[in-house]
Amino acid sequence: MALLRSWVESANAPEGSFPLNNLPYGVFSRPGEEPRCGVAIGDFVLDLAACEDAGLVDLPGAPLLDVPFWNEVMEAGPEVWAQLRARLTALLAEGAAERDEVARHLVPLAEAEMHLPFLVAEYTDFYAGKHHAFNVGSMFRDPANALPPNWLHIPIGYNGRASSIVVSGEDVRRPWGQLKSPEHQMPIFAPSRRFDFELEMGAVVGTPSEGMVSVAEADRMIFGYVLLNDWSARDIQAWEYQPLGPFQAKATATTISPWIVTAAALEPFRVSTPEREVPLLPHLQEPGPMLYDIQLEVGLTPKGGTETIISRTNYREMYYSAAQQLCHHTTSGCPMSAGDLLGSGTISGPQRENRGSMLELSWGGKEPMEIAGGTRSFLEDGDLLVMRGFAQGAGYRIGFGDCAGRVIPAHAAPAGAGR
Amino acid sequence: MALLRSWVESANAPEGSFPLNNLPYGVFSRPGEEPRCGVAIGDFVLDLAACEDAGLVDLPGAPLLDVPFWNEVMEAGPEVWAQLRARLTALLAEGAAERDEVARHLVPLAEAEMHLPFLVAEYTDFYAGKHHAFNVGSMFRDPANALPPNWLHIPIGYNGRASSIVVSGEDVRRPWGQLKSPEHQMPIFAPSRRFDFELEMGAVVGTPSEGMVSVAEADRMIFGYVLLNDWSARDIQAWEYQPLGPFQAKATATTISPWIVTAAALEPFRVSTPEREVPLLPHLQEPGPMLYDIQLEVGLTPKGGTETIISRTNYREMYYSAAQQLCHHTTSGCPMSAGDLLGSGTISGPQRENRGSMLELSWGGKEPMEIAGGTRSFLEDGDLLVMRGFAQGAGYRIGFGDCAGRVIPAHAAPAGAGR
Repeated sequence: MALLRSWVESANAPEGSFPLNNLPYGVFSRPGEEPRCGVAIGDFVLDLAACEDAGLVDLPGAPLLDVPFWNEVMEAGPEVWAQLRARLTALLAEGAAERDEVARHLVPLAEAEMHLPFLVAEYTDFYAGKHHAFNVGSMFRDPANALPPNWLHIPIGYNGRASSIVVSGEDVRRPWGQLKSPEHQMPIFAPSRRFDFELEMGAVVGTPSEGMVSVAEADRMIFGYVLLNDWSARDIQAWEYQPLGPFQAKATATTISPWIVTAAALEPFRVSTPEREVPLLPHLQEPGPMLYDIQLEVGLTPKGGTETIISRTNYREMYYSAAQQLCHHTTSGCPMSAGDLLGSGTISGPQRENRGSMLELSWGGKEPMEIAGGTRSFLEDGDLLVMRGFAQGAGYRIGFGDCAGRVIPAHAAPAGAGR
Repeated sequence: MALLRSWVESANAPEGSFPLNNLPYGVFSRPGEEPRCGVAIGDFVLDLAACEDAGLVDLPGAPLLDVPFWNEVMEAGPEVWAQLRARLTALLAEGAAERDEVARHLVPLAEAEMHLPFLVAEYTDFYAGKHHAFNVGSMFRDPANALPPNWLHIPIGYNGRASSIVVSGEDVRRPWGQLKSPEHQMPIFAPSRRFDFELEMGAVVGTPSEGMVSVAEADRMIFGYVLLNDWSARDIQAWEYQPLGPFQAKATATTISPWIVTAAALEPFRVSTPEREVPLLPHLQEPGPMLYDIQLEVGLTPKGGTETIISRTNYREMYYSAAQQLCHHTTSGCPMSAGDLLGSGTISGPQRENRGSMLELSWGGKEPMEIAGGTRSFLEDGDLLVMRGFAQGAGYRIGFGDCAGRVIPAHAAPAGAGR
C-alpha cells in the first residue's frame, strides 16, 4: 500500500506519524475546553465533536463523538468503525470537496492536551514474549528450564488494575511496598529500589462478548492498539508474587500512548507469529497472520541529561498474538467488554539491545548498562522513559505517538507508614 | 444492642434476616419494571426510588435512588450514608408518623427479582484465611511449610475479573479450559472436572482514594459486605497458575448475595483478628477490631435431592480484615474506586466441618465427602450451592440473604474448540 495523500500537507511527510493511512483516535482538549474525540492528521488533531456537530460526520446513533472516550464508537460495532474511517479518509483526502469546512476544525497538535482515549473497562497483562520469559526464567530459575511448563501451550496472563492506567505524559511516583532481601529475616516497608519499565503493546477490545470466542472472532473484536509501559517494582514483585501472582508491584501505574491506532490502519502490516516449538491445541491456532510488524524503541533521559536509546525491538517477536490472548481469555466463559485493555507482555528480542525491561537490560542489576552520562540498573528518580513505535509502509509510517512518563520521588511518608 | 422494633411486623421475628437493625441495600424489580434501589425490611423490600419521588427520603444530590445500582449513594460519601440510614430507621420504626405513606411503597420480597446491587468497578480476591492457606499448602506442598514465606506479613491478593460477577440465583456454567494431568505429556482442552466453590465475604469499597490509605481510613471507606462464592476450576488453576497466578480458573463467575449489609449494621459485631504469629509491620496493624462475628454455612443440594450442610464457619476466622486488605491494596499508590469489591479469601475454620471449599472438604478428591444420597469430591452438574450468613444479636439477626448458584453442564463444543 502506498501513501494516501491528504490536503493536510504535514500528513504527507514520509517519516511523519499521522498520514491519512493512519487516522488514530484520541481524546483532546485545549485549555478551558471539555475533552472530546479527535483524530490525528499530520501535525493536527481534527475535532470530531465539532465535525459531528457541523454534520460533516453522521454516524448511526450519533452523537457519539462529543464525549471524552471512544467507548461509544466501539460499542456501535465494526460496521460503524468502517463507516467512520471511510468518511474521515474521504474528508481529509487530497481534493476533498469539504476541505474548507473541515479545515476550520483542525487544532494544532502542539496546542492539544491529550487524555486517556477510552474508559478502561478492565486490564489484563500477558507474558507472551518468549525472549522475555526466557530471560526472566534464566535469571530466576535456570536457562535449561527457563520457560514454565505451560508457557508454550497457553498465553499466560493475569488481571491487572484498570484504575492505574494513565495517559502518556503523566508523572509516575515511585511506590512504597513490602520488600524483603534474602539476607534479612523480616520484610521492611520502604520505597521500591528496583523500579522498572516494561515495553508492551496494548490491544483495545472494541466488541463485547459472552462465552468463548474463536481466535478469528477475537481478531475482529480488537478495535486498535496502543503502546504500553507496564511499570513494575521488581523488589515488591519478588516478595509478593508467590503464589497468586503480581499485585502491588504492577498497580502504581501503567502508561499508554494517547492514540488508538486502529486495526484497520495496521492491516497492511500483519505478520504471523513465530513458528511453534510444540503444536498449539486447535482452539488457539491462528487462521491467518495476526501479529503486526511494528518497530519499537525505548529512550531513557536522566534528569537534566540527554537521551539514550536503550532498547530497539519489534512487536512481531511475540509468541502469541492479541487475538490468541483474547481467545484464551474467554475460554472459561469470561465476559469481555468494550474498553478492555490487553497488555501483550514485555516485547524483548533475541539480542541484548532488544531487551524490553531494565531487569533484562541490566540482568537483574548484575550488569549495569551504560547510558549518556552514567549507568543504570533500574530507574532513578527524574528518569524520563519514552517509548516510540511505528509500522513502516512504502513512503509512509503508521506512528503511535509517544508513550512517556517520568519517575518522580516516592512520598516521604505514606499514611500509616508508622514513620 | 437490642432489636429495634418496626411497624413492619415481620421485621421483628427473632430469627428473621432483615430487622430494622439491618436495613441492607439492594436493587430490585417486579416483572416489567425497571430495576431500582430498595432496602429490605422483614418480608418486604421498600421501594426507595418511590420514597425519594414521594419526598419521604431527601438526600443531598438527589435523585440518587432511581438507578439500578448503589454507586451514586456510595460516591455521595459517609455523611450521606449515615443520613439515609437514620432516615430509614425513623420511617420504619414502631410509631413512625409516616407509616401509612411508607407502607404504600412496600413490595413483598417474594415478588421482587433481585439484581446486582452495584456496578462492580474492579474485583480483587484475597487469600487471607489461615486455615484455608494452611490446608491448601499442606495438600500441594507440605504441612511443615504450608504457608508461603510472605503469608504472615502481607494479605496476599490478586486481581480478579469484575465482568464475571453475578448475583445470587444465576446459573453457573461449567467452564472449558486447558487441563493437564501429571501422567500426560500434553494438555487437553475440555470441561473442568474439578469445579469448586469458595466461601468468602466480599467488602464493597464506598469511598474512592488516591495514594496510600491507613488501615483506619480503609475501614471507614468500606460501605458494606456481601456473601461471595468465588467459583474455582481447580484443574484449570493447577495448570495455569505458575508463575502469574489464577486467571481463567476464576473467571467463569463469582456469585454475590443481593443485599449489601452496611458496615453500620455490622458495627455491634466487630471482633479483632486472631493473635499474630509474627508482628505485622506498623502500617498493617489494626487500631481496633475490624473483623466481624458472622456465622456462615454452605448447603449443597444435588439435582432432585435434598440439602446437606457441608460447611459451617465464621468470618472471624480470617487472619486479615478487609480494612487491612484495602490498606495493603493502596500501598503502591493504586487508586481505588467506589464499587470495588474485595473478596476476603476462603473462610475455613480449624475443623474439617469448617472447611470452605470442596478442595479442602474432600482433601483434593482423596477423601470424598458424604452428602444426602451420595458422595462428592467436586461439584457435579445440577448441584445447587447456597451460602448463608448472619450476625447474631440479642433477639435479632443481621442476615445477608442467600448467595446461591446452580452448576449447569458445560457447552457441548465451544467456538473454535476444533471438535
